[in-house]
Amino acid sequence: MRVLGIDPGLTRCGVGVVDGSVGRPLTMVDVGVVRTSSGLPIAERLVTIEKGLDAWIEEHRPDAVAVERVFARSDSSTIMGTAQASGIALVVAARRGLPIAMHTPSEVKAAVSGNGRADKAQVGAMVVRILRLTELPKPADAADALALAITHLWRGSASNRLEAAVARAKTQQSQQTPVRTR
Amino acid sequence: MRVLGIDPGLTRCGVGVVDGSVGRPLTMVDVGVVRTSSGLPIAERLVTIEKGLDAWIEEHRPDAVAVERVFARSDSSTIMGTAQASGIALVVAARRGLPIAMHTPSEVKAAVSGNGRADKAQVGAMVVRILRLTELPKPADAADALALAITHLWRGSASNRLEAAVARAKTQQSQQTPVRTR
Repeated sequence: MRVLGIDPGLTRCGVGVVDGSVGRPLTMVDVGVVRTSSGLPIAERLVTIEKGLDAWIEEHRPDAVAVERVFARSDSSTIMGTAQASGIALVVAARRGLPIAMHTPSEVKAAVSGNGRADKAQVGAMVVRILRLTELPKPADAADALALAITHLWRGSASNRLEAAVARAKTQQSQQTPVRTR
Repeated sequence: MRVLGIDPGLTRCGVGVVDGSVGRPLTMVDVGVVRTSSGLPIAERLVTIEKGLDAWIEEHRPDAVAVERVFARSDSSTIMGTAQASGIALVVAARRGLPIAMHTPSEVKAAVSGNGRADKAQVGAMVVRILRLTELPKPADAADALALAITHLWRGSASNRLEAAVARAKTQQSQQTPVRTR
């Protein structure tokens, strides 16, 4: 299973592609950022992000997309741009019918490092170990996108198996349901 | 000049089309909302908004699009969805190369009613008068979209004339600049 992690942002949108299957080590396929210039109108920047993310999906054909969930409680001045960029990421993935998951920063920290309050350095060190890299990709947005993809592969595989089991159970149940007659 | 006003929202995205030219009364062409169900995943809702807004542009062929500027300081629980919807609105317009303006709620109030702190009822009453309607379109998001379009036609035409004058002046200046020789 191949997952594209997206850490949305208006200036730097982190993107990371990770391959994984149950019981095997995860592999980094590619990592980078989609950048837009702060000097351009916001609408143009969002179109650049749309095209950039579309190109990543086109090239790497992920089976699922994991996007960081953005919260209003963040008091950053860039939060509106981040929310807009996340909206574009969701649309780009949904238009292609890809399964989408959103993970909060603390879910990512917990999945990758075992601690929902881990700091950036701890999460980064674990990303390097999990993907057997020689160093942490830069900028931080790129590394965060990899952490999102790892989170999705680890959390997603459990919930995917659960969903598959539920779907099987429902199919069996419907097959057992006697046909009603008037 | 035809302007499409968009009041972004995840559940109801207000849309209003207004025709106007200098020295003539404005005319409402169409008004409505693009709705999405709160029961659907957010990515699907954003795709519905994208398709809905695209269909409005396709049908009415506006010369410009006016989108409400969203602020983080709003403490509404829906602010993230509103920001994401506004991002989609900007991308849909920018992809088609349409000029885009963003107006704040107080700019809209000031333009339509002459008072940047006017309440909803005052702004609504002015929208009815300006467009010579028999009643205010509902829901409020639809009426707000008309107010945005009016704002753009009135503010935009002034700044457009200014820009045109500046461009003319620059052209004249460059024509007067003597050709430099070594």
